[in-house]
Amino acid sequence: MRLRWGDGAAYSHAMSADPHSGPDAESDWTDALMPVITDGLRRCRDCPLGIHTRPGLSLPAREAVHDVLDRLISVLFPGCHRHEAVPADGQDAYYRDRLREVAETLKDQIRRAYAYQYAFDGAPPPGDAETPARRAVTALVQALPRIQETYLQRDIMAAYEGDPAARSTMEVVISYPGVYAVIVHRLAHLLYEQNVPLVPRIMSEHAHALTGIDIHPGARIGPGFFIDHGTGVVIGETCVIGANVKLYQGVTLGALSFAKDADGRLVKGIKRHPDVGDNVVIYAGATILGGDTVIGSDSEIGGNVWLTHSVPPGSSVYNRQPRPLVRRKGDAPAP
Amino acid sequence: MRLRWGDGAAYSHAMSADPHSGPDAESDWTDALMPVITDGLRRCRDCPLGIHTRPGLSLPAREAVHDVLDRLISVLFPGCHRHEAVPADGQDAYYRDRLREVAETLKDQIRRAYAYQYAFDGAPPPGDAETPARRAVTALVQALPRIQETYLQRDIMAAYEGDPAARSTMEVVISYPGVYAVIVHRLAHLLYEQNVPLVPRIMSEHAHALTGIDIHPGARIGPGFFIDHGTGVVIGETCVIGANVKLYQGVTLGALSFAKDADGRLVKGIKRHPDVGDNVVIYAGATILGGDTVIGSDSEIGGNVWLTHSVPPGSSVYNRQPRPLVRRKGDAPAP
Amino acid sequence: MRLRWGDGAAYSHAMSADPHSGPDAESDWTDALMPVITDGLRRCRDCPLGIHTRPGLSLPAREAVHDVLDRLISVLFPGCHRHEAVPADGQDAYYRDRLREVAETLKDQIRRAYAYQYAFDGAPPPGDAETPARRAVTALVQALPRIQETYLQRDIMAAYEGDPAARSTMEVVISYPGVYAVIVHRLAHLLYEQNVPLVPRIMSEHAHALTGIDIHPGARIGPGFFIDHGTGVVIGETCVIGANVKLYQGVTLGALSFAKDADGRLVKGIKRHPDVGDNVVIYAGATILGGDTVIGSDSEIGGNVWLTHSVPPGSSVYNRQPRPLVRRKGDAPAP
Repeated sequence: MRLRWGDGAAYSHAMSADPHSGPDAESDWTDALMPVITDGLRRCRDCPLGIHTRPGLSLPAREAVHDVLDRLISVLFPGCHRHEAVPADGQDAYYRDRLREVAETLKDQIRRAYAYQYAFDGAPPPGDAETPARRAVTALVQALPRIQETYLQRDIMAAYEGDPAARSTMEVVISYPGVYAVIVHRLAHLLYEQNVPLVPRIMSEHAHALTGIDIHPGARIGPGFFIDHGTGVVIGETCVIGANVKLYQGVTLGALSFAKDADGRLVKGIKRHPDVGDNVVIYAGATILGGDTVIGSDSEIGGNVWLTHSVPPGSSVYNRQPRPLVRRKGDAPAP
Repeated sequence: MRLRWGDGAAYSHAMSADPHSGPDAESDWTDALMPVITDGLRRCRDCPLGIHTRPGLSLPAREAVHDVLDRLISVLFPGCHRHEAVPADGQDAYYRDRLREVAETLKDQIRRAYAYQYAFDGAPPPGDAETPARRAVTALVQALPRIQETYLQRDIMAAYEGDPAARSTMEVVISYPGVYAVIVHRLAHLLYEQNVPLVPRIMSEHAHALTGIDIHPGARIGPGFFIDHGTGVVIGETCVIGANVKLYQGVTLGALSFAKDADGRLVKGIKRHPDVGDNVVIYAGATILGGDTVIGSDSEIGGNVWLTHSVPPGSSVYNRQPRPLVRRKGDAPAP
Repeated sequence: MRLRWGDGAAYSHAMSADPHSGPDAESDWTDALMPVITDGLRRCRDCPLGIHTRPGLSLPAREAVHDVLDRLISVLFPGCHRHEAVPADGQDAYYRDRLREVAETLKDQIRRAYAYQYAFDGAPPPGDAETPARRAVTALVQALPRIQETYLQRDIMAAYEGDPAARSTMEVVISYPGVYAVIVHRLAHLLYEQNVPLVPRIMSEHAHALTGIDIHPGARIGPGFFIDHGTGVVIGETCVIGANVKLYQGVTLGALSFAKDADGRLVKGIKRHPDVGDNVVIYAGATILGGDTVIGSDSEIGGNVWLTHSVPPGSSVYNRQPRPLVRRKGDAPAP
């Protein structure tokens, strides 16, 4: 049969007129289409934009990185996030076995990320990816106790003490999305500091997908950090946040505008996002923008505040809330 | 034992007083309850609201549709989203095998959706569902190269060039939720145009669940579209968006009000959502409402702007931001 | 080899200088690190904050609770959410078998939650956890028909009738995140009323992760409740919401401020969140705060309204929207 290669509708019209197009004619029609489609996909694959994998190079696999996150968290909080019995005795063996597994998997994924970057940057040869990968994994694994003692314990207590709805610290550990997002960030940020490509962002976007909280792995965040509810929070790459800071849902710590070079291209890697001092509370929906903006310590930023300049320590910032109009229904057009 | 069919508390009180209610009396109490519960569930099942499946009819399975999405995306970007080696040679075989699998699965799910709709609408007989299902799948599969070349390549480059934090185009492909949501939308929209029931919405809600970005499959969106961060974005069914448009998190392109018929029922299928021209940037939290609202090309809509009327091309729209009040803490009531 | 226990970078520098640090020296370096790391993790584990499981006690497993949710929903709506054939005949057997399975799994998870709480509270002895667990599961299972007939049928019809984009009631059942979040809430709330620890919040956070809708299990919500789009919605623990209420994305029903005791600790368990009457519509981004705030029945709250006081029945509340400034681009600084 002769096929018209127009839009789908035209083609499928031709299809439906095909006397052979019964369910058992399946192979026919796909065979008829296949060469054109595969040609097209190969053509796409050859585009020079760097949006396709290269033969012989494997990218980090998202599923593997997500699994590494789960396993790292279950080493930090055994029995809290995965259904597994934690032995009363032989804890060291428990930790040792799990750390070995997770370190191997993570190193393999990070090696792929380095090898991929090297292939695109040119040198050094991909073979070298093994060394920096081991280095990064070593830094992360040996930092786990410090991450928990210096940061996570205080993050969790900040959540428990900061939320009247929290019944127990364990409820916070196993069910609070804000706590999960911060745990993932602490791990992703350490890899970001090791200049690991791709993997830290895969980690942070996994937390973003699960919590609606978007923390770039580059953000530097002090201990005792709590995000309540959290959906819609955005924290930019160059933010620096002090100790004991509390955010609510929908808070943005973002860029005010982007510098461009002579060719009109965005300049990358410069300070674009605000600094926030210690003991600051930022209420739901507040937007704070700009790399020169500094929120002084012990300040309080009200709900829906739009702030693009610095405020001194101990500030209380809020909107002159216009009391909304209240009328009997029908007396006014609906909003 | 005699049971009191009151609320759970009363019943369970009777339970706890039951001398036989040890763990090994499990079967007793479920047997005692079961007839009442199964009667109730059967009664629910018989409600005429169309909220239950019909015997002999299978709905599209969400898990299967989600899997189809993953596999279509792994055909468009081999090796980027799934952990699989992509052959340097034999690419055609690679594509052909995967396309065959995914086309079969998708056709089966779409056939169920048509059959289900036919059963509710009356005619034509469900048997016919095979033909339009094959038609829709054919239209989608053969459109894949065009979708990537005409849309996705430009969507991805818009993300890379529009975000100073983007380190590489590959980082954008494998980790940006805004890019994932747009890829899914391009696929779901093509099926929507083929009048496929249920399946396009299952696809768009899968992306919504993973990204917090809610794009109705009906929205018509030009190439070079980028949503940064994305959580909270809502794009309505009858939106028409031009080329090279950029949105930030929390932007709503929605309906202003709903027309009702003489019976007070909502009128469905009319233009309810705005049009947006080419090269428009809409900053975080902006709300643009109404089917008569048109944002002219080359315009810029500021953060948190509330807009319910049209603006001409080249407009810059922003709130008269009231500088928020800044006081020493304690001098004013907390916001 | 001698290791320097500095930060990751310093250590990894030592590593890269290690003549043995080839891929085949893997075991060496992990062995060298392991004792220090496992010591640190054991030290963390001994912290008195209650953020770690106790030997011999198993927490509810999130995966198991999520699976219970899926199975409860597939009993309420057979064939709609899981890929399984629903028998035309033998429905009672279908229900009976599934109810038995799910009741057993849920009871086991709830028993763990009670046992865990008892262990922390002191008395009664964990052995008793079996009885209240069976009581709670019984209350939930026998309430399923009532939950569907009294609440879910009206919730689903409210969604279908309230959204012009809804093509069929079945589309609403299988794909609307707002409907899913409300179904989960109806189940979690019943367990919350039974004072089940941990499990209700695990359920509500699962829905939060999938939908971006954060409804605390404690909230009391009348029938005919519909949340459209939903991402960013927050409904606090002590909210009481009437019948036929409709919310849009980004609506917060939250606390205005937290009462503290003499020691400066938050007082838990008091009324902190608003009441909403019957037939109220609250548009996108509205924020309503405070335990004394009551929204009278038949009221309409406009988009982005910030409301911290009560309004009488039949009110129409909206912002004096300042028409945003519209200028030719370049005539004004970008927002």
